Amino acid sequence: MVEWITSRKNEGIKQAAKLVSSSSFRKEQGEFLVEGARLCRDAAQSDIEIVTAYVTKQAQDKYPEYVEKILQKAEQNFGIEPHVGELLSDTKTSQGIYCICRIPSQDALDLVCDGHYLALENLQDPANLGAVLRTGEALGIRGVILGGSCCDVYSPKVLRASMGAVFRLPLSFCEALEKQLPRWQEQGFSTLAAVPAQDAVDITQVDFSNPSILAVGNEGNGLTDGVIRACEQRVTIPMKGRAESLNAAASASILMWEMLRGREPPFDRVAARPSLT
Amino acid sequence: MVEWITSRKNEGIKQAAKLVSSSSFRKEQGEFLVEGARLCRDAAQSDIEIVTAYVTKQAQDKYPEYVEKILQKAEQNFGIEPHVGELLSDTKTSQGIYCICRIPSQDALDLVCDGHYLALENLQDPANLGAVLRTGEALGIRGVILGGSCCDVYSPKVLRASMGAVFRLPLSFCEALEKQLPRWQEQGFSTLAAVPAQDAVDITQVDFSNPSILAVGNEGNGLTDGVIRACEQRVTIPMKGRAESLNAAASASILMWEMLRGREPPFDRVAARPSLT
Repeated sequence: MVEWITSRKNEGIKQAAKLVSSSSFRKEQGEFLVEGARLCRDAAQSDIEIVTAYVTKQAQDKYPEYVEKILQKAEQNFGIEPHVGELLSDTKTSQGIYCICRIPSQDALDLVCDGHYLALENLQDPANLGAVLRTGEALGIRGVILGGSCCDVYSPKVLRASMGAVFRLPLSFCEALEKQLPRWQEQGFSTLAAVPAQDAVDITQVDFSNPSILAVGNEGNGLTDGVIRACEQRVTIPMKGRAESLNAAASASILMWEMLRGREPPFDRVAARPSLT
Repeated sequence: MVEWITSRKNEGIKQAAKLVSSSSFRKEQGEFLVEGARLCRDAAQSDIEIVTAYVTKQAQDKYPEYVEKILQKAEQNFGIEPHVGELLSDTKTSQGIYCICRIPSQDALDLVCDGHYLALENLQDPANLGAVLRTGEALGIRGVILGGSCCDVYSPKVLRASMGAVFRLPLSFCEALEKQLPRWQEQGFSTLAAVPAQDAVDITQVDFSNPSILAVGNEGNGLTDGVIRACEQRVTIPMKGRAESLNAAASASILMWEMLRGREPPFDRVAARPSLT
């Protein structure tokens, strides 16, 4: 480590701290901050670019293998004092490892018409969004489309809850899903809207042999009418207990599971980190 | 409302506040505290006994229908000032409605040998446990067995995350699952241990036509060896992405879904709130 930062008033640290707290600053800078040994290591092992790594002496001693991988990947590195690192921490007990990463470019929306995608609309809770991404990755989803005004995937809470899936899952952003869905349909995708309605098609009865995009809505309000209308089919999880009792993350888990149930994963593509754009 | 409490030093309030913060005090008293208009209403509509209700004037004006149901059910009622209510609140914005409820008796463990049960071992995170209970109720699980040292289901966080499922789902407590599982097997239950192992049986290939008990373990460590050995079968969710990326709540959701997939619910029994004991 060549250079050490000992002052909490360091300009770089101030900027990095703002990346933790402000979603609009993240957008403006095209950067976000990752905290923690494992999460920073995950970023280093993914296609994500690491601009700057900040590591305490204590972290170097405690997580030497993780730190080595992170420092190798980062464009620049700084040693920091623990009391400086605290400014960058969103957790109670910081591990003293932080990385400023570049937000990947999100240009045109051009899905590859194979595999199965999840489209989320207006998902607001960071823990929910992170959990959905984590589960989606585990189940072998091809990518996730974030529609409407979902919470920022590059917020500390989403990053943590996703266990690094944010770095590895192909993500795409789309303000108006209802406009895009018919285009995807023309490209050959089946489009499905998840609704809590008994007259919708039981999710176990849906034919997922086609490439598919399944839309899941906001925690409280579900999908907007526009998105429901824009989809070919309304599908639902048949409820045996109390219908109101499935939350967004649990619904999305079960829906993705059914979409991919018994299906062979696109292993080669997952390994190659397929791009949505 | 006959009596009003205006002092934060009121003895009843002090005791009630301790029910919020201390799990051992809850056990000692055999009582727990429920907060919020909807959750207290859910308690009032369930078999749970309400010992005391505390309601602010503001809450009476804002949630008249909920408050009416709660006051009817409670053995005694008090009006309270908002600054008194704050002492009982575990949330940022309190609705000014609180109930002291009785913990249902948990005597012998005698499962009715039909239906499908979930057995949790050492589940530590209140949000996870609450979510699992909520999803279990929605999917029509017959009951949940809390094994080992799970976190307290009567803590404010579990109650909230469960959306009141704690009041309605048959719950049973069992310190040593590994001793009890063979007995349940003798009674006719199939017993299954969920493990993250590729050589375990794919959950989609398991025959769930028998009454079944499915054991799911701790967030970090999974099931203990003793419980795995005590079960007839090891089952797993086939992973297509990263195996380490399913959390306890997501795993349990998918496992319960598969256990109950396409199965007719025991509607009459759910309506009658079946007892495990």
